[in-house]
Amino acid sequence: MSALGSLVVVGLGPGTAEWLTPAAADALARATDLVGYGPYLDRAPAHAHQHRHASDNRVEVERAALALDLAAQGKHVAVVSGGDPGVFAMAAAVFEALDGGKAAWQRIPITVEPGITAMLGAAARLGAPLGGDFCAISLSDNLKPWDVIVHRLTAALSADFVISLYNPISSARPWQLGEALTLAGTIRAADTPLIFARAVGRPNESITVTTLDQAAAIPADMSTLVMIGASTTKLIARTNARPYVYTPRYYGAWR
Amino acid sequence: MSALGSLVVVGLGPGTAEWLTPAAADALARATDLVGYGPYLDRAPAHAHQHRHASDNRVEVERAALALDLAAQGKHVAVVSGGDPGVFAMAAAVFEALDGGKAAWQRIPITVEPGITAMLGAAARLGAPLGGDFCAISLSDNLKPWDVIVHRLTAALSADFVISLYNPISSARPWQLGEALTLAGTIRAADTPLIFARAVGRPNESITVTTLDQAAAIPADMSTLVMIGASTTKLIARTNARPYVYTPRYYGAWR
Repeated sequence: MSALGSLVVVGLGPGTAEWLTPAAADALARATDLVGYGPYLDRAPAHAHQHRHASDNRVEVERAALALDLAAQGKHVAVVSGGDPGVFAMAAAVFEALDGGKAAWQRIPITVEPGITAMLGAAARLGAPLGGDFCAISLSDNLKPWDVIVHRLTAALSADFVISLYNPISSARPWQLGEALTLAGTIRAADTPLIFARAVGRPNESITVTTLDQAAAIPADMSTLVMIGASTTKLIARTNARPYVYTPRYYGAWR
Repeated sequence: MSALGSLVVVGLGPGTAEWLTPAAADALARATDLVGYGPYLDRAPAHAHQHRHASDNRVEVERAALALDLAAQGKHVAVVSGGDPGVFAMAAAVFEALDGGKAAWQRIPITVEPGITAMLGAAARLGAPLGGDFCAISLSDNLKPWDVIVHRLTAALSADFVISLYNPISSARPWQLGEALTLAGTIRAADTPLIFARAVGRPNESITVTTLDQAAAIPADMSTLVMIGASTTKLIARTNARPYVYTPRYYGAWR
């Protein structure tokens, strides 16, 4: 029987190595095996004698099972995730696989290294849009019914949270973002700040600040984080630059 | 007239230097002046010839005004914040001060360096409790009315978000956390996972996993992040260790 391995789920942050924590870099350097979606593995610094197991982006639980099998064989495995691994990324998939999974997996020490999630990277670029209470919702209805997403969106819009939408759109899910923003327009004012933050921290970063009634004009894809301001979210105009966006910490009486 | 300075709001992460991003470390090293709450300044690595302006924790907008004044005088100022500066921390205070503030402040280049916020640090220690949709709410009613907090909590509880409570309790606000958890008990089941994560990433880190009906037994303070699980949040028992806590990505039909 081989020695017990280990498994760490590592967050790379949004893109730039400047946002990769030292703890995450160390965890990547110590691993004998990296498991993850190909483009994320490409962002991990190269280390000799390290095995890389690339997969596509639609098989999270199989990827988690592969990682657990390798760790059970004595490997020191890093599961590589974009952003923060606990926010709509690989950490939950690993624990889903573990829970009720093979007996050989149950003794593996599993740790998680946090990262800068897209919402925090986008907020930093903009100013302080998350200055008040906020929510994060995945718009993907691959794993939960659309009516749950509508219920949560309605609750968050009605209670005036700032809302970050992850996984807003893909070729297989073309209409959900439009529906969500149409719903937002029935609850929030037309001039509510709306942000499309694409590929934050990567060379092709692109951030658009618009308003809810102009949403249809802005393209989005799976690399886009969409943020809907609260009623109190404000812009500060700048000359020759995108406005700052912030949500004050103070809040008046309930309207 | 002196040369234009700059202002960067820097997130230190929850505590350990292993969670401080290289970009944040660089921003601290380049600054001529550091402004912040004393204990946060103590956590910033020492650099010669750097001026440190410590303040207490209750004067965010005065602290922001001091930082903007220094930058307007040509200094390169880092405003030092725990966790992520955009999440219930200094970034919003800086933009509140800027908005409608002195004319001399308006041309200062202002940037924000994100950090690991307490919620992400705590989640990493636990497993993947934020695997589903989630909210972050500050329980402080210093700057917003308590009825707004109750409205938001009720909405988030009813829509089955995982909920992170920041600023849960202080000597001046002794009853708010108890009220919030009592409210949670009227909407969520008694055995809902409840987490008290204190001083995550610091030497005195302490994490307790309990259930909503046992909340009163657990002490909390301003260094504590309280997390209320969703109806789907699960525990995985371990021998001789705290259980893992995770929220599956999948979600059944709306109950």
